[in-house]
Amino acid sequence: MDNPTTHGLEEELRACKQKIQNLLRENEQLEMEMQQMKDPKNSLSSNLIPNECERSMSGEVNSENRYSRLMALQKMGVVSDYTRIIQCSVVIIGIGGIGIVAAEMLSRCGIGELILIDHDSVELANMNRMFYRPEHSGMTKVEAAKQSLTIINSDVKVSGFNLDVTNLDNYDIILSLIQSDTPSRQRLVLCCVDNFSARMSINQLCLEARVPWLESGLSENAVSGHIQFIVPGVTACFACAPPLVVATGLEASLKKEGVCVASLPTTSAIIAGLLVQNALKYILRFGKCTEVLAYNSIQDFFSSYCLKPNPKCSFKLCLQRQEEVIKNSENCMSNNIFLPQQDESIQLEEVSKDNEWNIEVVEEVADEMRENETEVCELKDLTNEELNELLKIS
Amino acid sequence: MDNPTTHGLEEELRACKQKIQNLLRENEQLEMEMQQMKDPKNSLSSNLIPNECERSMSGEVNSENRYSRLMALQKMGVVSDYTRIIQCSVVIIGIGGIGIVAAEMLSRCGIGELILIDHDSVELANMNRMFYRPEHSGMTKVEAAKQSLTIINSDVKVSGFNLDVTNLDNYDIILSLIQSDTPSRQRLVLCCVDNFSARMSINQLCLEARVPWLESGLSENAVSGHIQFIVPGVTACFACAPPLVVATGLEASLKKEGVCVASLPTTSAIIAGLLVQNALKYILRFGKCTEVLAYNSIQDFFSSYCLKPNPKCSFKLCLQRQEEVIKNSENCMSNNIFLPQQDESIQLEEVSKDNEWNIEVVEEVADEMRENETEVCELKDLTNEELNELLKIS
Repeated sequence: MDNPTTHGLEEELRACKQKIQNLLRENEQLEMEMQQMKDPKNSLSSNLIPNECERSMSGEVNSENRYSRLMALQKMGVVSDYTRIIQCSVVIIGIGGIGIVAAEMLSRCGIGELILIDHDSVELANMNRMFYRPEHSGMTKVEAAKQSLTIINSDVKVSGFNLDVTNLDNYDIILSLIQSDTPSRQRLVLCCVDNFSARMSINQLCLEARVPWLESGLSENAVSGHIQFIVPGVTACFACAPPLVVATGLEASLKKEGVCVASLPTTSAIIAGLLVQNALKYILRFGKCTEVLAYNSIQDFFSSYCLKPNPKCSFKLCLQRQEEVIKNSENCMSNNIFLPQQDESIQLEEVSKDNEWNIEVVEEVADEMRENETEVCELKDLTNEELNELLKIS
Repeated sequence: MDNPTTHGLEEELRACKQKIQNLLRENEQLEMEMQQMKDPKNSLSSNLIPNECERSMSGEVNSENRYSRLMALQKMGVVSDYTRIIQCSVVIIGIGGIGIVAAEMLSRCGIGELILIDHDSVELANMNRMFYRPEHSGMTKVEAAKQSLTIINSDVKVSGFNLDVTNLDNYDIILSLIQSDTPSRQRLVLCCVDNFSARMSINQLCLEARVPWLESGLSENAVSGHIQFIVPGVTACFACAPPLVVATGLEASLKKEGVCVASLPTTSAIIAGLLVQNALKYILRFGKCTEVLAYNSIQDFFSSYCLKPNPKCSFKLCLQRQEEVIKNSENCMSNNIFLPQQDESIQLEEVSKDNEWNIEVVEEVADEMRENETEVCELKDLTNEELNELLKIS
């Protein structure tokens, strides 16, 4: 078995098998694209989300209405217009432990369109995280996701692309998927990949497309995670200051035979939840979007902070976006966090208005609250429209 | 139509239909119980978790091993023995937005046994939260959950009971489900109900059974939630100090025709994640279990604190448990948080050991970290065995 000729052949065979698999995937991808080209409704260059005009959401309270408890957010004054979600397209890159949970959440919320990008297949070893089931084993993740998400909510247009974001050949097609060609359609990217180079590619793509994105990640020992909200030119880009977890270099050291990173359904779902919660705050304009939020499960410790754009960032496009933003926004920007319309946000105090038992938040908690508030900087009075304006100027 | 006789008849008919439905459920429940009695392996009074002896978890890294990424927690030193999870039974009361996600997480983690209790049915209006699918509509929640969870991981023994925890007639059967009759089998209760009286019933049940439990809840406007770890006699019980969200009285004021509470898949999954993460820390003895952890999504604000048992608690059983604990533990208890074996927990510093980029946690974050540490009290040197000992003494 250790004969060098046998060893060489085995290796060649393995490479061939890998190539066949890649070709099969490419084929599948081509077929999918062709299908979309044939059907004008599904065309990549189409300006309309199918059924966008026909779709509606009723606030009626009955057991058959899947949107009643979401429209209740509007009745309760949390959001001013929940149906805004129908006009939004979210691109999710990476539909593993975090991305697929994010996709399910957005589907259940009735998002207008979901565009899923991944080049991996489902295996039994993925069953320790949410969503995929044993019967999906062997299917591509985009195929399995599309199938299940359509069952969960057929109102949502879901398209899947079997593409590797780190492959330069795919740059243009992914860029076209990220770029919105209708100003009325809001587009957001969720980055749910598991490696540094994929994050760097997405950083470049979103800088080029001037599209806001939310990055997410988990530590290799499964007990920590983070999310980061990145608005090109407004906040630090991913290259300005990558998060600690990614920067530790653990990533590379763990790619050894017989060793795999740990993962937990809990940590991935918590991070997916925080990610989509911030996406919803951005899309539906309520509350305050956090720039960086880190979670450590060992002590249930959460920290949030801002990252200013680095004036010496290694990404030229970042410097360009920073300049554009400074030029066009000196009057409405005081710091580097995007805050949706202030008047629509709920204050903590309001939640406890009907406090008939007179239970009070104790002083030390209140202190911490105030501390948190000063820690997170705000960009007041900047609406989504103004932000889009800022980002569109070239 | 408004004729008083017609109205009376309609009401009677509605009551009859309701009764039929209740009877059908009772029937179903009885059949389930009978089935369990016939099969000695499944008997409620059986001391053995079926397949407990045969079940094993391999740490081998291959695409077919569903436990490889969980056993990696052991390889990486996060937990000392992941297979301990096989010996554990978790009772989940309420399998709506939070409970069903908790059940899926524990199934995927390979928990020994899941006992689900709920008396509700699935409807399309539940589709805005995770797990249930349109094809489950009309099924009881326990039936739908059992069916899907068995597909997800057939290693886990799942049993479902269509019971209302607030109905006094069910007290004894639920008590027997909660009580563990084998000392080697660890038992934990997760409370995922949506009303105050159900929480009070569970409080009474767990005090009587001397079983630790984790309570959880969401605010009616869907943007906040909390978890609370309750160890009878050691921490505050639910009646000692109910959380603010429940205490506001919003609950009752919202039960009007045409009005429903709001809910989001994000907030429920985040709370379910935090709940199960703390359950895992307790079962697998790593990290620090938080007593009360509250989340407000509007500002991504998290607070954690301790609640000491109330020496004037209105629940007699709580006072009795407090006395027992004081009597038997003066030497090993300094405060009211349960901390699993200290030597198995990971410190935040360890995560960043390989920090080749020399990125540091900035001072204000470190300060907050220290603050958090002093805020959460610790019960050092108390192992699970010692805790069980404490709770078993009558």
